[in-house]
Amino acid sequence: MSPPIERLYRDPVHNIISLSYDDPVERLLIEIVDSPEFQRLRRIKQLGLAMFTYQGAEHSRFTHSLGVMHVMRRVLQRIGRDDLVDDRVRAIALASALLHDIGHGPFSHVIEKVLKVAHEQRTVDILLDPRTRVNEILARFDPELPRDIASVYSYDFQPAFVSQLVSSQLDVDRCDYLLRDALMTGAKYGNYDLEWILRHIRLDSTGARLFVGAKGLYAVEEYLQARFYMFRQVYFHRTLRAAEALLLSILRRAVELFAASELRFTVPGSVFERMLGGHELSVVEYLELDDYDLMFHIKQWQRDPDPVLADLARRFVDRRLFKTIDVDVDPSAEAELAEVVCGIVAAAGFDPEYYFVVDSASDVPYYGYYAPDEADARSNIYVEVGSPGGEVREISSVSHVVKGMESYRIHRFCFPAEVADTVTAASEKLASGK
Amino acid sequence: MSPPIERLYRDPVHNIISLSYDDPVERLLIEIVDSPEFQRLRRIKQLGLAMFTYQGAEHSRFTHSLGVMHVMRRVLQRIGRDDLVDDRVRAIALASALLHDIGHGPFSHVIEKVLKVAHEQRTVDILLDPRTRVNEILARFDPELPRDIASVYSYDFQPAFVSQLVSSQLDVDRCDYLLRDALMTGAKYGNYDLEWILRHIRLDSTGARLFVGAKGLYAVEEYLQARFYMFRQVYFHRTLRAAEALLLSILRRAVELFAASELRFTVPGSVFERMLGGHELSVVEYLELDDYDLMFHIKQWQRDPDPVLADLARRFVDRRLFKTIDVDVDPSAEAELAEVVCGIVAAAGFDPEYYFVVDSASDVPYYGYYAPDEADARSNIYVEVGSPGGEVREISSVSHVVKGMESYRIHRFCFPAEVADTVTAASEKLASGK
Amino acid sequence: MSPPIERLYRDPVHNIISLSYDDPVERLLIEIVDSPEFQRLRRIKQLGLAMFTYQGAEHSRFTHSLGVMHVMRRVLQRIGRDDLVDDRVRAIALASALLHDIGHGPFSHVIEKVLKVAHEQRTVDILLDPRTRVNEILARFDPELPRDIASVYSYDFQPAFVSQLVSSQLDVDRCDYLLRDALMTGAKYGNYDLEWILRHIRLDSTGARLFVGAKGLYAVEEYLQARFYMFRQVYFHRTLRAAEALLLSILRRAVELFAASELRFTVPGSVFERMLGGHELSVVEYLELDDYDLMFHIKQWQRDPDPVLADLARRFVDRRLFKTIDVDVDPSAEAELAEVVCGIVAAAGFDPEYYFVVDSASDVPYYGYYAPDEADARSNIYVEVGSPGGEVREISSVSHVVKGMESYRIHRFCFPAEVADTVTAASEKLASGK
Amino acid sequence: MSPPIERLYRDPVHNIISLSYDDPVERLLIEIVDSPEFQRLRRIKQLGLAMFTYQGAEHSRFTHSLGVMHVMRRVLQRIGRDDLVDDRVRAIALASALLHDIGHGPFSHVIEKVLKVAHEQRTVDILLDPRTRVNEILARFDPELPRDIASVYSYDFQPAFVSQLVSSQLDVDRCDYLLRDALMTGAKYGNYDLEWILRHIRLDSTGARLFVGAKGLYAVEEYLQARFYMFRQVYFHRTLRAAEALLLSILRRAVELFAASELRFTVPGSVFERMLGGHELSVVEYLELDDYDLMFHIKQWQRDPDPVLADLARRFVDRRLFKTIDVDVDPSAEAELAEVVCGIVAAAGFDPEYYFVVDSASDVPYYGYYAPDEADARSNIYVEVGSPGGEVREISSVSHVVKGMESYRIHRFCFPAEVADTVTAASEKLASGK
Repeated sequence: MSPPIERLYRDPVHNIISLSYDDPVERLLIEIVDSPEFQRLRRIKQLGLAMFTYQGAEHSRFTHSLGVMHVMRRVLQRIGRDDLVDDRVRAIALASALLHDIGHGPFSHVIEKVLKVAHEQRTVDILLDPRTRVNEILARFDPELPRDIASVYSYDFQPAFVSQLVSSQLDVDRCDYLLRDALMTGAKYGNYDLEWILRHIRLDSTGARLFVGAKGLYAVEEYLQARFYMFRQVYFHRTLRAAEALLLSILRRAVELFAASELRFTVPGSVFERMLGGHELSVVEYLELDDYDLMFHIKQWQRDPDPVLADLARRFVDRRLFKTIDVDVDPSAEAELAEVVCGIVAAAGFDPEYYFVVDSASDVPYYGYYAPDEADARSNIYVEVGSPGGEVREISSVSHVVKGMESYRIHRFCFPAEVADTVTAASEKLASGK
Repeated sequence: MSPPIERLYRDPVHNIISLSYDDPVERLLIEIVDSPEFQRLRRIKQLGLAMFTYQGAEHSRFTHSLGVMHVMRRVLQRIGRDDLVDDRVRAIALASALLHDIGHGPFSHVIEKVLKVAHEQRTVDILLDPRTRVNEILARFDPELPRDIASVYSYDFQPAFVSQLVSSQLDVDRCDYLLRDALMTGAKYGNYDLEWILRHIRLDSTGARLFVGAKGLYAVEEYLQARFYMFRQVYFHRTLRAAEALLLSILRRAVELFAASELRFTVPGSVFERMLGGHELSVVEYLELDDYDLMFHIKQWQRDPDPVLADLARRFVDRRLFKTIDVDVDPSAEAELAEVVCGIVAAAGFDPEYYFVVDSASDVPYYGYYAPDEADARSNIYVEVGSPGGEVREISSVSHVVKGMESYRIHRFCFPAEVADTVTAASEKLASGK
Repeated sequence: MSPPIERLYRDPVHNIISLSYDDPVERLLIEIVDSPEFQRLRRIKQLGLAMFTYQGAEHSRFTHSLGVMHVMRRVLQRIGRDDLVDDRVRAIALASALLHDIGHGPFSHVIEKVLKVAHEQRTVDILLDPRTRVNEILARFDPELPRDIASVYSYDFQPAFVSQLVSSQLDVDRCDYLLRDALMTGAKYGNYDLEWILRHIRLDSTGARLFVGAKGLYAVEEYLQARFYMFRQVYFHRTLRAAEALLLSILRRAVELFAASELRFTVPGSVFERMLGGHELSVVEYLELDDYDLMFHIKQWQRDPDPVLADLARRFVDRRLFKTIDVDVDPSAEAELAEVVCGIVAAAGFDPEYYFVVDSASDVPYYGYYAPDEADARSNIYVEVGSPGGEVREISSVSHVVKGMESYRIHRFCFPAEVADTVTAASEKLASGK
Repeated sequence: MSPPIERLYRDPVHNIISLSYDDPVERLLIEIVDSPEFQRLRRIKQLGLAMFTYQGAEHSRFTHSLGVMHVMRRVLQRIGRDDLVDDRVRAIALASALLHDIGHGPFSHVIEKVLKVAHEQRTVDILLDPRTRVNEILARFDPELPRDIASVYSYDFQPAFVSQLVSSQLDVDRCDYLLRDALMTGAKYGNYDLEWILRHIRLDSTGARLFVGAKGLYAVEEYLQARFYMFRQVYFHRTLRAAEALLLSILRRAVELFAASELRFTVPGSVFERMLGGHELSVVEYLELDDYDLMFHIKQWQRDPDPVLADLARRFVDRRLFKTIDVDVDPSAEAELAEVVCGIVAAAGFDPEYYFVVDSASDVPYYGYYAPDEADARSNIYVEVGSPGGEVREISSVSHVVKGMESYRIHRFCFPAEVADTVTAASEKLASGK
């Protein structure tokens, strides 16, 4: 017997990830991995600026995306159901998992405020644009595949459980990133018992809804707690958010200077320049962007004649980030404090336009804690109650632990470290004055 | 009691790495970490292009350097010896560990062939140059510190064991990188029992020589085997080496085009341009370089009018690497095969000057397997024989396992994947013809 | 330099546990470990019958006790405070940790219902009885040591934090057993971030109270959740409880037969026989008992002429345990169901006196979830609020997660598997009838 | 869809081990696990007295046997080959793995010297004896199954690879116990990359021979090194061997006393008594024996009127083991030293018949290092050479690492600790006299 021919990846989280050349679906996945669009994910960090807080968080979206596909494959193997999952559905589910981040740009959460295009839309654009290699590969397998995958993302695909697996409160994306980010950051909070959840995932008879069997309830609770802590301790860490605030100020200043034809360094005719100029980017253009463009430009801008841009850029490169202070939720108190801090920032010779940044929960895409979506029940988590064969219900109606998770908001002011002591003192004075 | 004030890092390998603000030596280390020169290590990958083989190998020299310092601190705690290790020696040992990679440039093993300056020399230059922040920090602690650290690297420092810890066959550098690279790559081979080795490290009475106590012998054998396999399976992996060969061709082509004033994209007046022009870089200039410069330029070069440069750059960006074939050690056979392969490469329309690369063991800086250095015994590994208190001897004279490790050489030809089948067929024909 | 002389233990949880012969306190600990009373803990399983549910739970109290001492040593190192922790206090704290389980008998939670002596009292008896080797070792170090250690257990020792460390809601006992039991059972729930907690444990200025620094709050929440799940999933597992119910029936039957001079097998004049006869055991006698006595007798009783004892013993040896049903908390419903189940058991030819067992929460020594003790605040958990230097408060007044943990009760009926279907049907009929 | 019904075990090594009630073969395995003969393995420690050296080594053969079956199932899944592995072959392979230790008695390596029956023979007896529940279960599945499994153990089964998997130099037994013993003892040496080996196991076309694919070579080398170190550091540890020597002396003394009707405590008519009397045990009798019998008797013998037995028993219970000295291989030197040590032992008032024990390599059942068996090639390890599809060869003809492993012998004298200093001094004097 000749040995099985397979592509093997070693992964720090999942150990061995394999793709077989003998299986047409997995051969499709190999081709996608080898495409320029997917290889580009090697150049985009999964956690953006989190490495400024947790130095080990240097992993790319490439590694994560492989992991997401691997978890999807394990779920499909587990639920079986050849009646619902033929080769075409399998290809769609696995490719949807593999490609879910293909539209991400560099430091998306920040840059999207400049580019004004959500990465979710970019993902669909890339799939459907016939000029991309990914589109060509998918369409060669099946002409409808690009559109099918897009419909998975928009929850229009049948059987519906595929969308649930790709994008819900308990999806293969989160299943991978919690474990991976926990490992890489060294923050232990993200660990949970993936094997036990996989073992107890069930699909109802119609393929409309996944749920977790009764014996898996505690593991799901643990998963939700892991998520909760990872958001508080990693994804919303104040240092990370302060780094993002600094990056935002840099980009805003560069855009303004460019508009005034005063930005010394850009690469003429480059996509990055077009982006700074506010031009809409085509799919092909967008796909040229990655972390290297951004970082390279910021490095050059350290020597810009504009003192604000140069100073901000040097702070970023040398990791001299903004400091932050938590802000009261009371609007009048907030306004009062904002005025005081702005004054301090300005008095120290910093332009508050760039050196005073409000970091608010309203910017936060995911809150980390689970709450059922009343309007759209599809992304909720469902569990079997009591014992195998019991009723299936939305988890927060069953679990005290989940119900007890407290929502929270982020509301902070960011400013240069040079004025941190003055700000703290002023804030305390203000607070005690009440 | 007010809480101890410390800087805490979470690390995927060592868990918690802490530095206390109360300890003047550790305060020095915090300052070094915060310096621009050290922060730059965040922008240099520890394993260069290894992520093309093991996708998880995306960690930076920053993370590794913190780990090396941590291992050094644990060794110093373990050996105690306040008679030999006062605050000054401790500062020198810890700073030497932290700074051991400060001179590394982007993809050093490749770029040094273009720059013609070894990173070891760069490290010393950075320490001693009064314009660097690191020099300023060190000299403020003690004016002699920069020079002392340099003397550790050159094995001129007393007590001599500090040099042994920083740079020998069993040093804190390797102790960290084997574990870290094993974790990140997912290759299990690099694991060994660090705790047991730390527990059994001993220092002779004069501080001249470290050795491992009798009960630690097996752990050292395991460490050497880990190293051996990591070199064979990771550091010398043929795909990684093929990627390096491709990068070398890119750089060589760019240098030539630039010399002929035919390279379209560089940043005028930039350090990178000066490097391509063959200018010697000052310390300050050198410190501007990192992975982002290299990668950004290669991305631009994909659109260079020179078809060779553009093609090579696109291969690199999209990870379409060279393929390789192992070459017989017999010189006449090698010459014959080289001629044949060159012919095939040329016949397929590729310029062998850039599309045919010899990857030879003589380029390999470390061989992975342990052999005692007869001429310079200082970097050898010493172990206690028999039982505690026994004679101390060089390890290969004691251990059958170490003695039995087989040396090996790397000798390969690299060429485009397009001609791989033809090359294989020709090679087999040549071999069978003998 | 001659090598440090130490006793090294390798531990699956803590890796290396070392005791130095150079340190008089650690030499004391070595002597205690080598005493017959401590060696006896090798013959008592940490989790009693839990191996019937989680087959890997076969570890002894010996292993756990070493781990508890190790955690205590790490805490003491961490808090420093030579002003409060001199060699005597250190010896008392470490020996208290090491010896905290010395009074445990075989399957304590069950056998104490027969013996009517709490293991806590036994621990004190062993310490204070001059005939034990442990007493001799302690008293040789310091004549007051046995009494001091007893005062630690009774919360009468000063500085008070030692008692808190040995026996409170966050003590070194739980710190070890959650991790150890999680590893051995393979249930992942018990994992939490011990290193982070150790890093943030603080002692107030007087030594009266330990608390956890602000940055350690999440780790304590995680610890409490770990404990909560371990109780629900392991310590209160219905199969484990059913095994204990079976063991209780065996012992009760044996005691009755012995009282009637109808028990065929005992070892005449043995301690085990005296125990069955209801005699009070001296310390020396008590120390002869371990798991081997119990199991050996049960094995012999498989061939007892009494059919009840023989049948129960065979069930136990072959692991044919009782089945259980959860019982409504409403007393009248409970009484009604009890009558029905008893009837079913009897109708199947089983004597309900032994084949029908009520397993009630009121028997449960620890509930697994944290609730502050209003009456006795000493065992509560305290955390610093907000930021380092902030106010120190009881944790449930601070943490929503802790507040949200739901208390629960165990109330079950146990009966032979042979009648399980009948019982289930009857119970459902009863429930639907309401 | 009703959920899959399965028996789940959590395992510290393999995490989840599952058996499905839907699969007739796995239902057979569940029945075997539930049989009294298999449950008895809970009462037999996997590593006998190793817990005296590595306190965590308290796991039973039950846990290990489940793990062995799990590895077998994973290998079968990996190699596929429905042409060779139908349900019957699968049942035989899995049951062979599960039952491979069913014939082990308590502390087999010691007790077999008294009982004079190898556990391998006992395994076959248990399978074939119609009075055992295991025989009944197997025969109900297929009347030939008991005999088929026996033929697997004797290498008479076809396809032959099943025997290779159950009992060869690279079998599922070793695959499990190295990892399990490494975890439990805390000795790290036993770790190797099981997943990688499983991934590369291949079966030749006829089913006659398993081998490891080319890419798995390093993992097999690592496995063999793991085995080598585990033997040297755990299985042949001098403290463990000294404990076995002590146990042997106890049993020999008890047998003699019993023969002379001078042994005070036995249980009249018990199997243990029959064993001491030298009677041959029937299968049913043999199956009554476990660790509890042995330990319970030794505990009683501490109070025997015979001072030798009582003293030896107390030493054993309190873990005051023999000390050892390594002995020269030269026969005349050995004889001379033996005479000297015997004299010292006797002079100290100890009867050398019981207090002087020779522990020799010739007693050692497995040597830990790999060497090909020239006479019987079936248990050798085979690997593919070069690249996938290459020639398959015996591993030591390919691997320098394997070839380089050094054989070694154990030859020691054991004696009471009381005379250790005198013995050492005498031995050194003797050695220096040459």
